[in-house]
Amino acid sequence: MGDVLGGKGAGLAEMCRLSIPVPPGFTIPTDACRRFLTSHSLDSTTLKAMRDGMTFIHTHTEGACFGDHTSPLLVSVRSGAAVSMPGMMDTVLNVGLNRATVEGLAKQTGDRRFALDSYRRFIQMYGETVRGIAFEVLETPLREARKRAGVEHDNQLSADELARVVDEQLAAYQYATGHVFPEDPWVQLETTVAAVFGSWHSDRAIVYRRMHGMPNDLGTAANIQAMVFGNRGDLSGTGVVFTRNPSTGHRELMGEWMSNAQGEDLVAGIRTPSSINEGPSSLQHTLPKIYDELISMLARLEKHQRDMQDVEFTVQDGTLYLLQTRAGKRTAYAAITMAVDMVDEGLIDKKTALLRVEPEQLRTVLHSEIDPDAEKFLLAQGLGASPGAASGVIVLTPGDAERLSAEGTPVILVRRDTSPEDIHGMKVARGMLTETGGMTSHAAVVARGMGVPCVSGCKAMRIDADAGMVYFSSDIAEAEVRVGDVITLDGRTGSVFLGEVPRVEHQLSDAFETLMAWADEVKKLGVRANADTPEDAAKAVQLGAQGIGLCRTEHMFFSPDRIVHVRAWILAEEPTRREAALHAIEGFQRDDFSALFRVLNGYPMTVRLLDPPLHEFLPHGDDDILAVAQLLDVTVEHIRMRTESLSESNPMLGHRGCRLGITDPDLYAAQARAYAHGACDAVDAGTEVKPEIMIPLVMVTPELVRLREVVQTQWDLVMKERGHAIDVLIGTMIELPRAALVADKIAVHADFFSFGTNDLTQTALGLSRDDAGSFLDHYLKDEILIFNPFQRLDEEGVGALVRMGIDRGRQARPSLKVGVCGEHGGDAASIHFFNGLGVDYVSCSPYRVPVARLAAAQAVLLLQPMA
Amino acid sequence: MGDVLGGKGAGLAEMCRLSIPVPPGFTIPTDACRRFLTSHSLDSTTLKAMRDGMTFIHTHTEGACFGDHTSPLLVSVRSGAAVSMPGMMDTVLNVGLNRATVEGLAKQTGDRRFALDSYRRFIQMYGETVRGIAFEVLETPLREARKRAGVEHDNQLSADELARVVDEQLAAYQYATGHVFPEDPWVQLETTVAAVFGSWHSDRAIVYRRMHGMPNDLGTAANIQAMVFGNRGDLSGTGVVFTRNPSTGHRELMGEWMSNAQGEDLVAGIRTPSSINEGPSSLQHTLPKIYDELISMLARLEKHQRDMQDVEFTVQDGTLYLLQTRAGKRTAYAAITMAVDMVDEGLIDKKTALLRVEPEQLRTVLHSEIDPDAEKFLLAQGLGASPGAASGVIVLTPGDAERLSAEGTPVILVRRDTSPEDIHGMKVARGMLTETGGMTSHAAVVARGMGVPCVSGCKAMRIDADAGMVYFSSDIAEAEVRVGDVITLDGRTGSVFLGEVPRVEHQLSDAFETLMAWADEVKKLGVRANADTPEDAAKAVQLGAQGIGLCRTEHMFFSPDRIVHVRAWILAEEPTRREAALHAIEGFQRDDFSALFRVLNGYPMTVRLLDPPLHEFLPHGDDDILAVAQLLDVTVEHIRMRTESLSESNPMLGHRGCRLGITDPDLYAAQARAYAHGACDAVDAGTEVKPEIMIPLVMVTPELVRLREVVQTQWDLVMKERGHAIDVLIGTMIELPRAALVADKIAVHADFFSFGTNDLTQTALGLSRDDAGSFLDHYLKDEILIFNPFQRLDEEGVGALVRMGIDRGRQARPSLKVGVCGEHGGDAASIHFFNGLGVDYVSCSPYRVPVARLAAAQAVLLLQPMA
Repeated sequence: MGDVLGGKGAGLAEMCRLSIPVPPGFTIPTDACRRFLTSHSLDSTTLKAMRDGMTFIHTHTEGACFGDHTSPLLVSVRSGAAVSMPGMMDTVLNVGLNRATVEGLAKQTGDRRFALDSYRRFIQMYGETVRGIAFEVLETPLREARKRAGVEHDNQLSADELARVVDEQLAAYQYATGHVFPEDPWVQLETTVAAVFGSWHSDRAIVYRRMHGMPNDLGTAANIQAMVFGNRGDLSGTGVVFTRNPSTGHRELMGEWMSNAQGEDLVAGIRTPSSINEGPSSLQHTLPKIYDELISMLARLEKHQRDMQDVEFTVQDGTLYLLQTRAGKRTAYAAITMAVDMVDEGLIDKKTALLRVEPEQLRTVLHSEIDPDAEKFLLAQGLGASPGAASGVIVLTPGDAERLSAEGTPVILVRRDTSPEDIHGMKVARGMLTETGGMTSHAAVVARGMGVPCVSGCKAMRIDADAGMVYFSSDIAEAEVRVGDVITLDGRTGSVFLGEVPRVEHQLSDAFETLMAWADEVKKLGVRANADTPEDAAKAVQLGAQGIGLCRTEHMFFSPDRIVHVRAWILAEEPTRREAALHAIEGFQRDDFSALFRVLNGYPMTVRLLDPPLHEFLPHGDDDILAVAQLLDVTVEHIRMRTESLSESNPMLGHRGCRLGITDPDLYAAQARAYAHGACDAVDAGTEVKPEIMIPLVMVTPELVRLREVVQTQWDLVMKERGHAIDVLIGTMIELPRAALVADKIAVHADFFSFGTNDLTQTALGLSRDDAGSFLDHYLKDEILIFNPFQRLDEEGVGALVRMGIDRGRQARPSLKVGVCGEHGGDAASIHFFNGLGVDYVSCSPYRVPVARLAAAQAVLLLQPMA
Repeated sequence: MGDVLGGKGAGLAEMCRLSIPVPPGFTIPTDACRRFLTSHSLDSTTLKAMRDGMTFIHTHTEGACFGDHTSPLLVSVRSGAAVSMPGMMDTVLNVGLNRATVEGLAKQTGDRRFALDSYRRFIQMYGETVRGIAFEVLETPLREARKRAGVEHDNQLSADELARVVDEQLAAYQYATGHVFPEDPWVQLETTVAAVFGSWHSDRAIVYRRMHGMPNDLGTAANIQAMVFGNRGDLSGTGVVFTRNPSTGHRELMGEWMSNAQGEDLVAGIRTPSSINEGPSSLQHTLPKIYDELISMLARLEKHQRDMQDVEFTVQDGTLYLLQTRAGKRTAYAAITMAVDMVDEGLIDKKTALLRVEPEQLRTVLHSEIDPDAEKFLLAQGLGASPGAASGVIVLTPGDAERLSAEGTPVILVRRDTSPEDIHGMKVARGMLTETGGMTSHAAVVARGMGVPCVSGCKAMRIDADAGMVYFSSDIAEAEVRVGDVITLDGRTGSVFLGEVPRVEHQLSDAFETLMAWADEVKKLGVRANADTPEDAAKAVQLGAQGIGLCRTEHMFFSPDRIVHVRAWILAEEPTRREAALHAIEGFQRDDFSALFRVLNGYPMTVRLLDPPLHEFLPHGDDDILAVAQLLDVTVEHIRMRTESLSESNPMLGHRGCRLGITDPDLYAAQARAYAHGACDAVDAGTEVKPEIMIPLVMVTPELVRLREVVQTQWDLVMKERGHAIDVLIGTMIELPRAALVADKIAVHADFFSFGTNDLTQTALGLSRDDAGSFLDHYLKDEILIFNPFQRLDEEGVGALVRMGIDRGRQARPSLKVGVCGEHGGDAASIHFFNGLGVDYVSCSPYRVPVARLAAAQAVLLLQPMA
C-alpha cells in the first residue's frame, strides 16, 4: 500500500492492523496529491475525506474536538511519500491552536506554559514550512525573550514571557506575509495539507528524484494524527528505538529515551537522552511495564515487516503510542550481518537478503574508515576518488615516496596530477592527493586499482614544489603545510585532514562471505578483475574474481629497471639495438605473465597489448632527459626530436592502441611471445592456464586481421619451440563507436569482444575524461546530465552502441564471448544493464569485485518477476 | 561488350563493324581469364578459341602462317580490361619469332636488320613482362653493342651486330630464368596469354582496384592481332591522333605522325614526330590519300562512339590500319567544352554530357596552374593541400605577410604550422607552405576556404626563424633559401619550386556556366558554402552556392582590433568589464552578419555559435602575453593562470561547442543578439534574409533545450526592440556519435540538423585529424584503409551514424531539414552517398561548390536506372 498511503501511512496502517497503539489518525492518499498538483487546489473529494477523517479522530479522542475552545483537538500533519526525500515538507505539529484554543488547552491541561509553548512551536513550524518564512524571522522574538529573561533555554521561559513571544511572532508573521496568521483550524489544516502536497514539486525534491531515477508523477500522501504529548509529566516521555544494532547488525535493541519530553527535544539535544534499557533513567528502569509493552510490540513489528525497524514512540500520561515505524538505516556491516542472520532466523529468504544490501555499500566494508568520533581539523575538500582512509607524511615526488617508504615511513603522495611515470611512487604511497583530475583521472584509476585511498581534484590546494610547501585556501581553511607534515585522507568523502586522524579497520566477516556465496549462486554474469600485478591479482581472487578481464601490459613498463628498455626501443635508430630492447621487454613480461598465471591458478587472463601512445614513456624533465640520453648513449637532441615528433594535439585520438601494432608490429610480436612463454612456464610449473589476448582500439577490420596473424604466428612459433599446444583466444576491444557499428564484420575475426566502456564513452560523447572536470560539475549541477557518464554507463547513447555491438557481433558469430572491462564493470546500475544485454562477464578493479558480484546477483533477482 | 571483350577488344570489334581496317585478330574474352585465375592454367575451351582465332588470322593474311619458316605470321598480344590499370601487363609484340622464323622474315622482307631488330625487341618484351626479368639484364647486350659500335642509337646498329645482341640476350634469358627461351611460337603465345591473365592479380592491380572501388573478380580480356609494321619504308609509318583538341576541347584534329617507324619509336622519341596535318613532313602532305582515308574513318568513329577518340594507327606499305581507338584523356577545360559542344552537335544528350566531366576535375578549372612547359627547379614535395599555383616572397610571420602585402609585394607565408591567430597573415598571402599538418590541417582548410594555394606537410623543410632561413633537404634537393627569396607553390601537386615559375590562368568559360546550369536542373541536393566573410560569400554565390551552410562565427574574432575584446571577455574578472567586452563583440559581429546577409540577398545563412575552446583565443608567446596584459590592464600572472586553467589534454573532446554555451551563456546570448540585429539591419536596407542558428556539439538533449531558449529569448527581444518579426530557424549540429544515436529525441527541439562530418569522423573513428598524419599514410599504404576518411566519408561507420541520425530525426520530426557541413560536403563520392540518404543540402568551401553541384547532378543521374 506504499504507493497509495506513502511509507509513513503504510507503516501506521500496518501498526493498526497489528493492534499496536498509534494516535488516532488518517492518511490522505497520493492520488489526492496528484489531483492537487494539476488543479493547484484541494478538490471536493479530498476535502470530504479530510472532514470524514477528522470525524473519525473525534470519535477516538474522548470528546476532544477540532477547534473546540474547551477540549481542543490538535493534530500533526506529516508528508509521506513512498520514499522520503530532501526538499519535501516534513512535519507540522499542533495544528488547531489559535488564540481561543490555546486558552482551552491551558485550562484543560492546567499548564498554561505548555499550551503557550505548543502554540509558539506551531506558529514557527507553520510559518517556516507552510509559508516559507525565514527561520530568523520567527526565532528572533524567542531569542529576545531569552535575552530579556537572562536564561539560556526556551524551557526556562515563563508562561507570560511565552505569551509575549507568541504576540510578537504573530506580528512578525503578518509583517512577513502580509496576512494575519490563520485563526481557523480548518484553514490551518487545509493550507498545511496543500503545502505538503505542493512540496512534491519543490526544486530540491525534483532534483533528488532525477538523481535517483525516481518517477516524477507519484505524489505524496499526507498523514493527519491526533497530537500526543510526551511532555506532560513523569509518566510521559518520548523515544526512538532500533530493533537491532544499526552499526553492528547484532540482535540487540538500541535506542534512546527522554522522559517528560517531546520528539523535537530529543532531536534538539536540550538534555542528554537516556538509553532505552541501560541505566537508572532508562525506560526499562523507570517505566518497566511500558518497556515490556514496547518490547513485545517491536518483536511483532519486526517479525511482521521482516526487517529491522526504526520506531518513534511517545508515552503520554502512562499510555504508549507508536508514532512511526520504518526500516532502519544501517551501516554496510550491519546490513550484511542482519541479512544473513534473518535468513538463519527464517525471517527472510536468500533472495531478500541479497536485495537488502546496497552493492555500493560494500566498498566501505573493504576499506578502513576515519573514526567518526575522532576530533579532526579539515584542511580541504576534494573528490572522494578511491575509498578508504590513510595517514602519512607529505611527499611531493615519487622518488621521495620510495625513499621514505623504504625507511618505513608511511607517505601520502601529493601531486598536481599523476602520470604513468609516477607509478613507482604511487605503489608505495598509503594514499594520493592531487590538485587536478576527476574521479577517473590517472591517480584515481590507479588508486582504486591498488585499493589505496585517493582524493583528487582538490582545487583548494596549491603545491610549491621548490619551497616544499602545500597551501590550502578555501572557505574551509587557510593553511600551509610542509613536506614531512602528516595529513590524513578520507578517500570516500574526499576530505583532507591535518595530522593523523584515528581510523577504524574492518575485517571481512563470515556474514560477508556467506552473502557473497549466495550472490555467486544467483548471478549469471562472470566477474573478473582489472589487474596488472600478481599482488593485485591475488587480492582480486581473494575477493572473488573469476579471472583477469584486463591486464594492461604497459603497467609492467614503468619500474626504473624496465622503463629503460622501453625507452631504448622507442629511441633506437639501429635495428639491432631495437631488437635487443625488445628482447629485454619480452624477458620481464614473460616472468610477469607466468607469475600472474600461477596466482590465477586456472582462471582466464585477458592481456591487452600495448595501448598508450609512446610519448607517455619518454622522459620529460631536463634532468630525466639527460639521464636517459647518457644511459642509452643517444643525444639529448635526439630524445627531444623524438618526443616532439611523437607529441600529439589529442593523444586520446592519436597514435595508440592497435595503431602502434600496425606501424610497429615488432612490439606486439614480442608481447605475444612473452605471453606464450609465460603460459608455457606456468604449465611447466603445474598450473592450468587460460590465456586470452586482446587487440585494443580496433577501428577497421583489417587492423584485427593483420594483428591477429602477427600474434597467432608468434604464439604458434613459441608453442612449437616449447613443445606445448596451449590454445589462446584472440579477441578485440570494442571501444570506438565505429567498431560497435561494424561489429558483425569484426566478430568474424574475434574470439571475444571486450567493451572498453571508458574510451567508448569518451568517443561516443566526444568527452575527454581528463578535461571534462572543467564543466562536468556544472552539467551535473544544472541537471544537463543527471549522472557522471564515466561512473555510470550512459545507457541511451553508449549503451545503445554496446547493445548494437553485441547484437551484431553475435549475429555474425553466435558463440562470441562478450565482456566489459571499463570502470562501468564495477558500477551496480551499469551491471544491471549489462546483465540485461547478455554480457558474459564484467571486469573491474579488485576492490570492486564484491560490488560487482552482488550487483550481478541483484540484476538477476530484479529481472525475475519480468521473465 | 566492354565487360566481355575489355575496352580494347570492344573498340576493335566496333571498328570491324564500321568496316574500318584493323589488323586481323581476335579477342579472348574475360571469362577465360576468370577460369584461368581459378585453375591457374588455360583450359581446353580457351586453347581451342586460340587455335580457331589463329586460323581466322591465317585466312586474312595472304598465306602468312604462325611458325611458318618462309612466310611467318607474327602477332601482338595486348591485355584489355574494361579499364586499363597500372600493374597489369600491357603489350608483347612480334610473338612468333624464333631462330627459324626470324630468317624467314628476313628473306620475306629482304631486310635482315629489320627482322633481327624485331626479334631482339620480342625477346626483351617477353623476358621482361612475361618472365619478370629485370630491364637491365636484357638491355645490357644492346648497350654493349652500341658501345662496341660507337653509336648512339639502336637503329644505327648493323644486322650482324644485332645478331650478336640476339645471341647474348638469349643467353642472358637462360641464365636469368634457368630455361631456354621458348622456340615454339605456340608456347610463346600461350605463356604470353597466361601472363596477361595472371597480371590481373598483380599486387599493383589489386591495390589500384581497391583504391578506385573496382570489383576484383571481372578479369581481363586478351587481344591477339597480326603484326603490322610501320617501319617498312617511305610508304609506311605510324601515328596517334585525337579527334578533338584534348587540351582545349576545340573541334580540331590533333595528332602526331612519324614515317617509317613503329609505335614504340614514337613513344621513345628517337626522332621528333611531325604533326598529322601541319608542315611538309605531315601525313596530310606526304600521304594525302591515306590522310583523307584516316579523316573519314575518324569522323565515323567519333560519331559512332559519341566521344572524342584517341586513335593509334599504322601505315604498312601504303595500307592504313587502325590499331586502337578509345575515349581520349582530356583536361578539365576540354572535357567541359567537348561535353557542351557535343550536346549542341546532337551527338550526346545533357545527361551524358554531365557524366562526361569528373567533378574533381573542376577544381583545376577554378585555379591557376603552373605552366607545364616552363623550366623549373623543384625544391621539395609536400602535400597538395589547396589547389592553384602562386609565387611570392617568403615571409615567416603573419605580421611580415601583412606589412609586405600592404606594400604590394606578393608573399608566400611559410610556417611550421598555422593557428587561428595567423589568420590576418593568411588572408593576405598568395599561398601557404607548412612543414607539418596534412590535407585537413588548419592551413589546408583555411587555404581551401579562401581558394588560395597551400602545400602542407612539407617534411623536407626546416625553418630557422631567428636566422630568417628555410632549409630544404631531401632526395629532391638540398637548398637554403632566405626570407625575401621568391618561391612558387603548386597546391595541386604539392610541389615547391625555387623562383617564380610562369603560371596559366583560367577564365570560367561559357561552357562551364552551361554545364553547371544543366547540373542545377538535374540535382536534388542543395549546395551551400562554408563562408565566414562577405568576400568568401560573394565568391561562393558566384560559383553557384545557394546560401551559407556554415558560418564559423569565431573566424570573425581574429583580426587584431577584435581579438582584444574576445580576450578581454575571457580574462575579465569583474562583470562590468565582461559585459563591455561582450558589447564590443556583439557590435562587430552584427556588422559582419548584416554584410553577409546583403551578399546572400535572400539565400539562407546558417551561423554556428562559438565552437573552439577558449584557450585558442589567448596569447601564447611571452611578448604577446605582455602586450595583452598591458592592453587589458591585467597581470601577466593572471593571463598565465587563466591559460593554464583552460589548457586541455584533448581539446577536441574538451570544453568547447555548446559546452561553452552552457557554462558561459552570455556569449551565445550576445551572438544571438548580434545576429538578430544584423538581420534587422539587412532587412532595413531592403534585403531579404533567411537566418538560421545552429548549436554545435550537442551531446544530450537538455543542452539544446537550454540553449535554444537562450537564443530564442534574445532573438525575440531584439525583434521587439527593432519592430521586426523575422523568423529564425534554430537547429543543431550532429557531430557526436551519441547525438546521431538519440537523434529522435534531439529532433523534437531542432528545426534542422547539420551533420558535422569532420568531428563525427574524428569521434566515431577515435581519430584526431591533427594527429593521424603519423600513421595514416602507413594505413593507406598497407591498405588497412583504402581511402582517407577525412576526405571521403567512411560510409560503413560514419555513414551508418549519418543514416541513423537522419532516419531517427525524421521519425520524430518528418519535416526536419538535413544538411552536411563537413569537408565531405565537397567530395563527389560522399555526395553520392548523401544524395541517397535524402540529405537536403551539402555545404562546402566556396571553390568546391561547382564540384558539389556536378557531383549532386551525377548522383541523381546514376541513381535513375535503379529507380
